Amino acid sequence: MKIGRVAGTVVSTISHPTFDARRLLLCDILSPGGEPTGDYTIAADAIDAGVGDTVLILDEGSSARQIIGESVAPIRAMVVGVIDEIDLA
Amino acid sequence: MKIGRVAGTVVSTISHPTFDARRLLLCDILSPGGEPTGDYTIAADAIDAGVGDTVLILDEGSSARQIIGESVAPIRAMVVGVIDEIDLA
Amino acid sequence: MKIGRVAGTVVSTISHPTFDARRLLLCDILSPGGEPTGDYTIAADAIDAGVGDTVLILDEGSSARQIIGESVAPIRAMVVGVIDEIDLA
Amino acid sequence: MKIGRVAGTVVSTISHPTFDARRLLLCDILSPGGEPTGDYTIAADAIDAGVGDTVLILDEGSSARQIIGESVAPIRAMVVGVIDEIDLA
Amino acid sequence: MKIGRVAGTVVSTISHPTFDARRLLLCDILSPGGEPTGDYTIAADAIDAGVGDTVLILDEGSSARQIIGESVAPIRAMVVGVIDEIDLA
Repeated sequence: MKIGRVAGTVVSTISHPTFDARRLLLCDILSPGGEPTGDYTIAADAIDAGVGDTVLILDEGSSARQIIGESVAPIRAMVVGVIDEIDLA
Repeated sequence: MKIGRVAGTVVSTISHPTFDARRLLLCDILSPGGEPTGDYTIAADAIDAGVGDTVLILDEGSSARQIIGESVAPIRAMVVGVIDEIDLA
Repeated sequence: MKIGRVAGTVVSTISHPTFDARRLLLCDILSPGGEPTGDYTIAADAIDAGVGDTVLILDEGSSARQIIGESVAPIRAMVVGVIDEIDLA
Repeated sequence: MKIGRVAGTVVSTISHPTFDARRLLLCDILSPGGEPTGDYTIAADAIDAGVGDTVLILDEGSSARQIIGESVAPIRAMVVGVIDEIDLA
Repeated sequence: MKIGRVAGTVVSTISHPTFDARRLLLCDILSPGGEPTGDYTIAADAIDAGVGDTVLILDEGSSARQIIGESVAPIRAMVVGVIDEIDLA
């Protein structure tokens, strides 16, 4: 998984019911230190994340489908959690 | 998913019925700000997109097969939606 | 999928019947404009492509297995078509 | 697989029982010579690794699920072993 | 697939029987011309390759499992053949 920061939402019409009530989040990929890497992804939202949130992004379709509990869903990248803390011990 | 811009179409003979009536779109991968990243992909068209359209590109075979409703189809990257708006709140 | 140019063949003994009668093609990955990107892949040949041909390279195992009609085959990257034309409208 | 060094732990609430008792490890990806590459991943912990450990990171969901013996688990990257020695003969 | 050169072996304890009698090979990824690219992978050995061998590396779990004939094995990258010749016609 990668660390992301929610930069905004993407509005698009995708003809599949999985997307009917699910937001697409434009997320900048961050470094461990919290700096933008220049990379990004558009991920489906599993947690009602807000713009500016630092989040965990999981980039595997099978895992994404398990998180939302749907065996059939055309999703690969998903925002699966808000990051509460990164503990560099 | 990534943001793409349809740059053209690719004409090729692929011996699989999935491709008989489906266009292959050459798409430049864009940054969140809409600039070309230098990367590209050739994606199957699920939405009858046109050259110049800003689109959503989904790059997973299982998801692509679900979008078109075929359990068997040799596709990985697919254009799944036209992007109507990117809302950077 | 990516655009490739067949640069040569790779001779190797792989102990799996899928490879008994199937050539492995060393392909340079090209940009949309036809320039080498510096990246390459070694792909199984599904179409009897020749050196110098501009081809479509599909990089997903499930898709590769569907193209050759074998449900069991240890292949990920495959040359699936000769590119006849790239139409940048 | 890649060589990683555990840099810390990530605290996040992911609503799936797989993560209830499983730590998420922030791992820097190392070169064969043990230098940071600048890349990183957040991987689930299968071995109770500690900060500073040099570890093996396996980045495939199906494999991760087999390592922990759960057929259903939304995991892709996993720390699967501590590296005892790299023998450059 | 990519061209690799076996640089050494990695010693690690992975708690899964697949790895009990299988070496892990540290492989530098080579360019088509045989130069190191700077990238590497740690791959399971399917062919008893030796240090210095130029090999084919297949990076897909499903394929790796087919090569070794085990439907359950937590492996993604595998050394599947020694390269005897690269024929740039």
